Amino acid sequence: MKTQVAIIGAGPSGLLLGQLLQREGISSVIVEAKSAEYVLGRIRAGVLEQGSADLLREAGAGERMDREGHVHEGFSLAFAGRRERIDLKALTGGKTVMVYGQTEVTRDLMAAREAAGGVTFYEARDVKPEGFYGDTPRVSFLKDGERVDIECDYIAGCDGFHGVCRQSVPREAITCFERVYPFGWLGILSRTPPAAPELIYASHERGFALCSMRSDTLSRYYVQCSLDDRVDDWSDDRFWDELRRRLPEDVAASLTTGPSIEKSIAPLRSFVAEPMKFGRMFLVGDAAHIVPPTGAKGLNLAASDVRTLHRVLSIRYREGREDILEQYSPACLRRIWKAERFSWWMTSLLHRLDDDPFSRRMQLADLDYFTHSAAGRTTIAENYVGLPYEPIA
Amino acid sequence: MKTQVAIIGAGPSGLLLGQLLQREGISSVIVEAKSAEYVLGRIRAGVLEQGSADLLREAGAGERMDREGHVHEGFSLAFAGRRERIDLKALTGGKTVMVYGQTEVTRDLMAAREAAGGVTFYEARDVKPEGFYGDTPRVSFLKDGERVDIECDYIAGCDGFHGVCRQSVPREAITCFERVYPFGWLGILSRTPPAAPELIYASHERGFALCSMRSDTLSRYYVQCSLDDRVDDWSDDRFWDELRRRLPEDVAASLTTGPSIEKSIAPLRSFVAEPMKFGRMFLVGDAAHIVPPTGAKGLNLAASDVRTLHRVLSIRYREGREDILEQYSPACLRRIWKAERFSWWMTSLLHRLDDDPFSRRMQLADLDYFTHSAAGRTTIAENYVGLPYEPIA
Repeated sequence: MKTQVAIIGAGPSGLLLGQLLQREGISSVIVEAKSAEYVLGRIRAGVLEQGSADLLREAGAGERMDREGHVHEGFSLAFAGRRERIDLKALTGGKTVMVYGQTEVTRDLMAAREAAGGVTFYEARDVKPEGFYGDTPRVSFLKDGERVDIECDYIAGCDGFHGVCRQSVPREAITCFERVYPFGWLGILSRTPPAAPELIYASHERGFALCSMRSDTLSRYYVQCSLDDRVDDWSDDRFWDELRRRLPEDVAASLTTGPSIEKSIAPLRSFVAEPMKFGRMFLVGDAAHIVPPTGAKGLNLAASDVRTLHRVLSIRYREGREDILEQYSPACLRRIWKAERFSWWMTSLLHRLDDDPFSRRMQLADLDYFTHSAAGRTTIAENYVGLPYEPIA
Repeated sequence: MKTQVAIIGAGPSGLLLGQLLQREGISSVIVEAKSAEYVLGRIRAGVLEQGSADLLREAGAGERMDREGHVHEGFSLAFAGRRERIDLKALTGGKTVMVYGQTEVTRDLMAAREAAGGVTFYEARDVKPEGFYGDTPRVSFLKDGERVDIECDYIAGCDGFHGVCRQSVPREAITCFERVYPFGWLGILSRTPPAAPELIYASHERGFALCSMRSDTLSRYYVQCSLDDRVDDWSDDRFWDELRRRLPEDVAASLTTGPSIEKSIAPLRSFVAEPMKFGRMFLVGDAAHIVPPTGAKGLNLAASDVRTLHRVLSIRYREGREDILEQYSPACLRRIWKAERFSWWMTSLLHRLDDDPFSRRMQLADLDYFTHSAAGRTTIAENYVGLPYEPIA
């Protein structure tokens, strides 16, 4: 089997890349280790930068998002009994974010791929990216007991942090930067109306809390928890009680609770692998970098990698310029490090870090300064809606 | 002996307060444990916020500063082979800083006090602030073997971090916040022209360096050093070599070196005591708070405490309003925590902190973001020139 771009991973990055390439007349095959149902079952991010939403539209998969998603023009930071709104739209000259669940993005992209007749292999076993340092790379895997080899021009590694692509790169060719945070997020999904129309990020002495949502009837809440905690330690009642304690009083008082339909604990990690191109293989999204979820940059950063890879591959095929491919890694990394910075800063700003009273005072002083200064608020807003894309030339 | 305000400490804070009060017709006596020569021998800060310069003028001690000081409209941040200028004037709507040594400020204030006939006791031994929780506070000390008691309405504790005033407060009445940094600053003063017309703050893999100046012919340089280092470990040659390594190449190449006329190592500390009023005693400047020197906030923060104390005492005496005095501590602390935040941030941004490559990448990403974003540059500039004073009403 032959294709131009073999994509490993059918999460939102791989699917989005496939759609964008398809519209450019560039063929792709997607190979995914899990089933489609499994991929759709993963509850992840829910906030799309305006640029990510635009990219979904460009991929022909933005129709339902525009119908069912919610445009948010701001969010709030709650601390020390105060609630300060960051007016994204006013502070960024009109930019906003779109609240639309990653699960829905994935579903729409799957449907678009199916409609376009794109080839996707689910439940592929023993997937291997091969020969990417040479001229004839291929992706090899077992499907229903048979070995399949896909010959291609390029491999896109969209297979996430634990995926095979980054692990297939020789150790000496890659440098990794990592920070593991000493706490996690306990998140629940519930069929209840959101606590407030916009997201609330709360910094409290007991720890961080976040009120988020997927729709008018589906809410997503998080509380900072210990890495030693297990989901079984947290009954729904315990979760709601703890959440209420960390929220502004009026929000806590009017909170609608209900049974959780999903409950999980996620660790927080910052991770960047450099470079992101190895011969004819490109790493995309979580395969190359992880951000802690504070600030909602994970999916958006993956989307911006996809945008850059789509741009350079289009120029490569349209104009025959192989040199343009060398711009992928540096262009992605410039934007990635900025988003890593923002995510690390938001995480450091809002979580309970240690028992040092000076640390807490610095957090409160940061929150006070950055919410009161117009310049400070603008730094938060311009990062939250997404910094400009890096140019490709 | 009687006075309205007994001031402990004849550094710039105590002297400035005395001058401002004197112009308001409020009497003061200053009591200082050291000699005038010792006080003048301390080489300290050299950058005055515009508000601090205005306060010196208000105190009638700004004439020489306006003649000999240098107005700076910007400074530079050097990192990763780049040099980024922060245009203070353009970013803050016209605000600047004044480069004029603390030693000169002190000298001018001493001369102004002498001209005004103000009373100052130098080399006072066993100084004690007493009875400040009652209606008749006094400052007691030994002068030439005789005990002197100064009865007063109020005591101003301008006697620095190691002074007696804060130590005279009952332990349970005060809360202290502290951070000691795991490195120091090795500074030298030399009779050489400055490396550049404006200050350069350099963040280098080998550690922080700062090019500062006192005049066209007097330069002040610093390099981050280990807390285990002793001044004797650092010959002038070693200092200049290390400084050159950490500066941008063009600056290093054109650096004029010469014998040091002062060389010392200072530890870096963040410290805040709350509250700053205890009955009829007020803590001012370093007696209540310390900032690390990165960002040049120490003397300026002391000046803003003096400004606030002068304002509330003036209203107290003019209008008989004792209630106004309760505003001193909260008004000072609001501004202090903001300056503590900026000094801590600048310190964390520019120094070599640890061997974690992720930490270094976050510093470089912070430097990149904050120097490239207009909002980011504005946050640095508005803090560097000094945030607005807190209102007193």
